[in-house]
Amino acid sequence: MTKRFAVVLAAGQGTRMKSKLYKVMHPVMGKPMVGHVVDQALEAAIDNIVTVTGVGAETVQDYLGDKSKYVLQEQQLGTAHAVQQAEPIIGEEEGTTVVICGDTPLLTKETLEGLMNHHEDAGAKATVLTAHADEPFGYGRVIRMNDGSVSKIVEQKDASEEEQAVQEINTGTYCFDNKALFEALKKVDNDNAQGEFYLPDVMEILKNQQELISGYQLPVKEEALGVNDRVALAEANRLMKKRINEQHMRNGVTLVDPDQTYIENNVKIGQDTLIEPGVYLKGETVIGEDCFIGAHSIIENSTIHSNVKVTSSHIEEAVMENNSDIGPNSHLRPQSLIKEGAHIGNYVEIKKSTIGKRSKVGHLTYVGDATLGQNINLGCGTVFVNYDGKQKHHINVGDNSFIGCNTNLIAPVDVEANTYIAAGSTITDNVPAESLAIARARQVNKADYFKKMPHKD
Amino acid sequence: MTKRFAVVLAAGQGTRMKSKLYKVMHPVMGKPMVGHVVDQALEAAIDNIVTVTGVGAETVQDYLGDKSKYVLQEQQLGTAHAVQQAEPIIGEEEGTTVVICGDTPLLTKETLEGLMNHHEDAGAKATVLTAHADEPFGYGRVIRMNDGSVSKIVEQKDASEEEQAVQEINTGTYCFDNKALFEALKKVDNDNAQGEFYLPDVMEILKNQQELISGYQLPVKEEALGVNDRVALAEANRLMKKRINEQHMRNGVTLVDPDQTYIENNVKIGQDTLIEPGVYLKGETVIGEDCFIGAHSIIENSTIHSNVKVTSSHIEEAVMENNSDIGPNSHLRPQSLIKEGAHIGNYVEIKKSTIGKRSKVGHLTYVGDATLGQNINLGCGTVFVNYDGKQKHHINVGDNSFIGCNTNLIAPVDVEANTYIAAGSTITDNVPAESLAIARARQVNKADYFKKMPHKD
Amino acid sequence: MTKRFAVVLAAGQGTRMKSKLYKVMHPVMGKPMVGHVVDQALEAAIDNIVTVTGVGAETVQDYLGDKSKYVLQEQQLGTAHAVQQAEPIIGEEEGTTVVICGDTPLLTKETLEGLMNHHEDAGAKATVLTAHADEPFGYGRVIRMNDGSVSKIVEQKDASEEEQAVQEINTGTYCFDNKALFEALKKVDNDNAQGEFYLPDVMEILKNQQELISGYQLPVKEEALGVNDRVALAEANRLMKKRINEQHMRNGVTLVDPDQTYIENNVKIGQDTLIEPGVYLKGETVIGEDCFIGAHSIIENSTIHSNVKVTSSHIEEAVMENNSDIGPNSHLRPQSLIKEGAHIGNYVEIKKSTIGKRSKVGHLTYVGDATLGQNINLGCGTVFVNYDGKQKHHINVGDNSFIGCNTNLIAPVDVEANTYIAAGSTITDNVPAESLAIARARQVNKADYFKKMPHKD
Repeated sequence: MTKRFAVVLAAGQGTRMKSKLYKVMHPVMGKPMVGHVVDQALEAAIDNIVTVTGVGAETVQDYLGDKSKYVLQEQQLGTAHAVQQAEPIIGEEEGTTVVICGDTPLLTKETLEGLMNHHEDAGAKATVLTAHADEPFGYGRVIRMNDGSVSKIVEQKDASEEEQAVQEINTGTYCFDNKALFEALKKVDNDNAQGEFYLPDVMEILKNQQELISGYQLPVKEEALGVNDRVALAEANRLMKKRINEQHMRNGVTLVDPDQTYIENNVKIGQDTLIEPGVYLKGETVIGEDCFIGAHSIIENSTIHSNVKVTSSHIEEAVMENNSDIGPNSHLRPQSLIKEGAHIGNYVEIKKSTIGKRSKVGHLTYVGDATLGQNINLGCGTVFVNYDGKQKHHINVGDNSFIGCNTNLIAPVDVEANTYIAAGSTITDNVPAESLAIARARQVNKADYFKKMPHKD
Repeated sequence: MTKRFAVVLAAGQGTRMKSKLYKVMHPVMGKPMVGHVVDQALEAAIDNIVTVTGVGAETVQDYLGDKSKYVLQEQQLGTAHAVQQAEPIIGEEEGTTVVICGDTPLLTKETLEGLMNHHEDAGAKATVLTAHADEPFGYGRVIRMNDGSVSKIVEQKDASEEEQAVQEINTGTYCFDNKALFEALKKVDNDNAQGEFYLPDVMEILKNQQELISGYQLPVKEEALGVNDRVALAEANRLMKKRINEQHMRNGVTLVDPDQTYIENNVKIGQDTLIEPGVYLKGETVIGEDCFIGAHSIIENSTIHSNVKVTSSHIEEAVMENNSDIGPNSHLRPQSLIKEGAHIGNYVEIKKSTIGKRSKVGHLTYVGDATLGQNINLGCGTVFVNYDGKQKHHINVGDNSFIGCNTNLIAPVDVEANTYIAAGSTITDNVPAESLAIARARQVNKADYFKKMPHKD
Repeated sequence: MTKRFAVVLAAGQGTRMKSKLYKVMHPVMGKPMVGHVVDQALEAAIDNIVTVTGVGAETVQDYLGDKSKYVLQEQQLGTAHAVQQAEPIIGEEEGTTVVICGDTPLLTKETLEGLMNHHEDAGAKATVLTAHADEPFGYGRVIRMNDGSVSKIVEQKDASEEEQAVQEINTGTYCFDNKALFEALKKVDNDNAQGEFYLPDVMEILKNQQELISGYQLPVKEEALGVNDRVALAEANRLMKKRINEQHMRNGVTLVDPDQTYIENNVKIGQDTLIEPGVYLKGETVIGEDCFIGAHSIIENSTIHSNVKVTSSHIEEAVMENNSDIGPNSHLRPQSLIKEGAHIGNYVEIKKSTIGKRSKVGHLTYVGDATLGQNINLGCGTVFVNYDGKQKHHINVGDNSFIGCNTNLIAPVDVEANTYIAAGSTITDNVPAESLAIARARQVNKADYFKKMPHKD
């Protein structure tokens, strides 16, 4: 089989983005644009990807890592010049090369494969990816010959009236015979108004050598969207969101309102899970079957097993096992594990702790750096005092314990199984199994004091 | 007046839904699809509704209850076979029968009435509900004769070129002369590729008997939407949301962004109430006039009187009286009653409790199983300790009492009127009227201890 | 230069709004409709604005203040009658006068300038602002002569078949030679079906005097939207939201989903700030560069400096300095100042307080009427007890202090620098520098009590 290469153009500065962030690093549904492009190229089984970056683009290389090789385009002298930088890496190879802009995040592997297959089947030296435009004004038009092959690509300003009527446009993605590409690149000049070396000139050079130039039209024209400012970035987010959400719905997930549901690329969701509007699922989140994810919940890099109910809560790098529930308005911080059937109510913060099976943390409680057993009840206002001003300490609470409301557990401390702590206690010493711990003053009622207090009249 | 019947087809398995939930039970804006269909039929004053369900569809019958009669279609042998199951119930009646799919939740009573009136006025034996389609490909086309009557319904694959150009399509909803319907049903065969008994064949049979077949075109074509997968389900939600919201706006409710406001079917809202984006109003919620319902509030089966301010809060089966307010981020659980002019601040949970007139519950407080009088002030961090590990007990707090911050009230306990509880107290005994209760240790300052504590350097 | 005037028609009752609120006072993205109109007129450098209000419209005058002069139209006798009320103020002036409806909030200063410039350049006595309508049915058509000047405006019901085909419609905004306007107004009669004095009749009167009538077509037709009911009000909100958001995106702000981001007119946002869906920015809010404003945050009349992280929080009339962070689910109330690098975690309420540099308020805490120094740590559940039932008192906490969890600080009290307060203490007396304060009972463990407690079996 023919070897396949990709050159990803990622050196553009993107001044219209008005950003300190490197243009191709702007995320679309949580993944940098160049990440979308490279991942699709990898899925299209391309052997070797070369990313062309500009000065100061370490973030691109750091982000992509060994998914790609890199070449530096020190000066922005045009797209042909950019591709030429890849010559030391792939210039000598036989095969097919796609050239893709790093700011076209919607391009799919199906399109890349279709383009390369078409190119190879046609025996072309170059193939341009085209799209149909209802309003082609401003775009380069792809002019076809009677046999369907491409005769030329003509810019708006150079187009005759007849050419201007053509609705097939150049998307800026190309496929080449690799050797022919690098030979032709040597002949591209910068004899034009901007003084740049343009990649489309390669087509003309090859055409003049009587080579076959072909065109492959995008089935879904939104894929061609190139992002040059943040208005287009928002549009890319919208289209990617729609694409992702439709896939989940077809897999059996109910999205009450897909327009208001944000699911990043790598999230997985099981059948018959229902997701309400305003939910944001980020990172490597996995959600099981038959879950309810209520309105405005935010879940990031977390694993939610099956039949879990999440109501308007914020979950980060945590795990919720089967039949557990949380919310509204609770917060799981990293390294929290909520075991089977456990209940987390409202205004509860859990951090780096395990809540055992069927244990209940109902309200206004902070659990940090703790291990809780099964069937525990934490009263409202319980605080796990894990920090002494210098470091964090651990607390254990044994099975079946009942911790009264507004209790402080001062770490490090062990509350053994089957214990009872009276409400309002501050616990500094271990509590042995089967015992009651109490640490509070007795109540005194002082008669006729109400009138002496500074209350409102 | 002619008797009117409806046969609701609810036996389809809906495999493309990929769901354990019975297809017609999937909700649209909070109400199962079949519920929309049956409720509209009832509003259209149809005398007798027969719902045809499939095996394992107890949920349909449980949900609809006595709104309908039921027949079971044990095997899925086609739509004509489904309708035929209704024969034991209505087969002998004189009258008009509409056949409606249980997965067309947007169909309105106005359309059903229009269809039946048209059918009866025309003296037709069968009338098909049609719609105009800009892109009719794939749909059955309704072919009209010169006099406007229907000559036949032709499927895509059987349509001639001329017929394919017809843009009037079959919506799958029909109206029949009841007797003619059941007689014709006996003649339908399953001599086709799928081996099914098709309801549209009834039209052909009647036509061949020289009966008049008519067509009634939907004024609003979105009503024809049939839901076969969750993408269509989301679209049905979107259209129903739009329909409901426009009605509220025309009634004098301000929706800042109707695209992001979710109001289920039965919710009532008074004039000059303003609703911000991200709000979800569910179930039998009633909201009065001049209310402010702030962004991201969720209100379910609750009654909000007039001039109430709700800021980003979660309210379930509760009542808020005139001039009360709540939020942001508070939570009323079932059986909470917030009386006139009472104030609920932030991070407050109220459960099965009454908060008296003008009483204030400002912050970080849990009130459960309690009755509060008027003009009470609950300090921040107050906990009503209603649970002893075995059962819940009740707490009363009398008028004008002032409960200090971080206080625990251990149920059962009575705090009488005009009392004052010192901050940080745990109250286990009743507090008599006019008295001050205090239960805390005295403060000791230990000089020069700061350097001995394990704080950070 | 020619003097320029505006007459703003704000007397309409707007019965279709079904509202107690005066029609032109209904807000669009936070600003009353008439405010949009008057502000754009002011930006278009109009010398003198006269607003025509109806009976009971004090709110309009109170709101606009000295931006405008006011005349009262006591009876609603038509638009010509309304404009005539302005005669005592501007009737004697030489110049150009635009007449604008107070319910067209999308009209821009660019359009007003374009209209007046066109009018003056053409030497017209009257110019109508027109728009292209794809479906003009129901609108008044603007009929042009061969030379492009306007021959007449004809209502739907009076339009010939040829006139009905015209797609240029009257938007209801006009420009006049001021003297000609007021002279012509005297000749307008109410000899029509409604018995009203119509402003468009002025055009006809001037035309009959052989004066030049011109037409100026809106470049962006959405600007012509007139709001007569709340469905149109919602549409105006949608279009204004889009306009505002596109401007921010072009300035270098990332909006993940502009359809779900609500930014009122006067808000300013720095470059490279990222705003997630469901965020609402109101009033005079200013946000710096490189901030993260997480999903569902609500920020009102606040100043957020640079590199600040706000996660799902509610901020009102507060200031957050550089590198501070808050959330999720915290609440800054008015007059809160969060200084550089300070951290506010979850379920924290701050009111009228200063949190010093690098101080931390992690969880479930209320700080009210307090001044905190630097490097302080407030434990979880800390309550600043600022209210004694009658008035609020102040609390100071000195630098580097460590306040234990579930502590009450009873105002007025001073906690000096470098102090340590034991968890669970209620502090009523000042805490001297370098000391430890403790106010709690000692723990007692009672063996074998667990079985005696009323816990569940």
